[in-house]
Amino acid sequence: MGRVTVRERIWRIRDGAGSERVDTLVAEEPMEIRLNGRPLTVTMRTPGHDFDLAAGFLVSEGVVSSAGQIAAIRYCAGATDDGSNTYNVVDVSLAAGVAVPEGSLERNFYTTSSCGLCGKASLEAVTTVAHWTVAEDTARFGVPLLSRMPDRLREAQRVFDRTGGLHAAGLFTPEGDLLAVREDVGRHNAVDKLVGWAARQGRLPLRGTALMVSGRASFELAQKALMAGIPVLAAVSAPSSLAVDLAADSGLTLVGFLRGASMNVYTGRQRVTLETAPTAPMAAPG
Amino acid sequence: MGRVTVRERIWRIRDGAGSERVDTLVAEEPMEIRLNGRPLTVTMRTPGHDFDLAAGFLVSEGVVSSAGQIAAIRYCAGATDDGSNTYNVVDVSLAAGVAVPEGSLERNFYTTSSCGLCGKASLEAVTTVAHWTVAEDTARFGVPLLSRMPDRLREAQRVFDRTGGLHAAGLFTPEGDLLAVREDVGRHNAVDKLVGWAARQGRLPLRGTALMVSGRASFELAQKALMAGIPVLAAVSAPSSLAVDLAADSGLTLVGFLRGASMNVYTGRQRVTLETAPTAPMAAPG
Repeated sequence: MGRVTVRERIWRIRDGAGSERVDTLVAEEPMEIRLNGRPLTVTMRTPGHDFDLAAGFLVSEGVVSSAGQIAAIRYCAGATDDGSNTYNVVDVSLAAGVAVPEGSLERNFYTTSSCGLCGKASLEAVTTVAHWTVAEDTARFGVPLLSRMPDRLREAQRVFDRTGGLHAAGLFTPEGDLLAVREDVGRHNAVDKLVGWAARQGRLPLRGTALMVSGRASFELAQKALMAGIPVLAAVSAPSSLAVDLAADSGLTLVGFLRGASMNVYTGRQRVTLETAPTAPMAAPG
Repeated sequence: MGRVTVRERIWRIRDGAGSERVDTLVAEEPMEIRLNGRPLTVTMRTPGHDFDLAAGFLVSEGVVSSAGQIAAIRYCAGATDDGSNTYNVVDVSLAAGVAVPEGSLERNFYTTSSCGLCGKASLEAVTTVAHWTVAEDTARFGVPLLSRMPDRLREAQRVFDRTGGLHAAGLFTPEGDLLAVREDVGRHNAVDKLVGWAARQGRLPLRGTALMVSGRASFELAQKALMAGIPVLAAVSAPSSLAVDLAADSGLTLVGFLRGASMNVYTGRQRVTLETAPTAPMAAPG
């Protein structure tokens, strides 16, 4: 209940010998998001920043696009038989006049009735649902600054080093400021928490920012960046083909394999500049 | 359409200098699973072994537990307006008498009506739905053999080295035989493909085997192992708290941070033996 980590007794084996020790694990628990009292979805998440997660999920799915469209977010009281609260059910009340989605949300993005099912249809669906475009965003990110982002993200992660089990998402400005960091056992949840933080602060769209993620860049993460109006997505690991396709179609800058001074720029290279950083020395390659 | 990898032109930056090159990306496309003609779910997956993926998904969700319960699996013909086939819609026909699930499948495992929503309810739901138990499985896996599994899995991955973007899942015997390997941009899909392969071959339950995955061990992956009757789950990276809880409750052996001669055994240590391998020399630590 609200735990970010859990301590467990384990059997550690090194070079053929076993020993007992206590290890720290990342917590994973189900969270149900309700909309105006009705169950919408269940996600396995790491407890913490639950309201950000709920708000960000709704932004990613195109249900809301501003803080004013959310009237209230609260934990459902008495969620269990004995009247206690597991803090695993979050109810979002939409403001008057905001439409409640019908049916399955995932079909907003993955399918259209007109074209069977293909990657192209998924790209078009995102473009249709998104409230903003990022194609005209004039933000520029220098390579030295991009190179420092993975270490900055890792330093800001409060839990990762203790468990090795968390994904992180961080939001950077072109000046190198780290606006916020969120962590979760699921990388999609980490991004939703970050986007939800921004939405609740009235910061959407997130023009001029870069989203850095600790893992891979899938279609889903590119979709979340676009739904939040973020023009740059950078990932430590590989992007998928559909993430690159979506980035190319929408004008999103997509950087992958960002490790020290090395990176691959897949799309939107006009936002990536090679000049040296004006203030701080360049971080040593990892 | 059926591509496992895609070639893209990228801008590669190394030590402050950029150069053009062509890079190989892992393909990601939506796939819809239909049950007796009705849409059931959409997953973003890497094309390939699509029928295994559909069958394995149904095993993981508790819809089927044997090859005989599936009458046929086929691509839906003419899925697009022009009558062509995207190979992204797969229809599974259940055998006569097999119940079609109603409503949302995820609620089978994540929630129960009796107890609000908590991790404990998720554990009980898996135990209730699973067709087999693994607690009495007498399989034993030696540490030297476990130590070689990550390298064996990586060698068997046909696509990983070209893209760096794929998760892999492999099924091992206690003698070290690698029965099958499946890859996907999503780790849950890689495991579903592997389980579906076994289901279609009439090999369920997979008693006496170990499932090795390239990433982390979440609740969802532990659930999939149990639904297939696999007694050992080993992961290169960290497990989550709920994966460990589920493993402890169900008698599943859970090994994490399996890297060369190092590993952590979280549950079910009676199946992990320290003796030296009888045949092959121990692999060097990575």
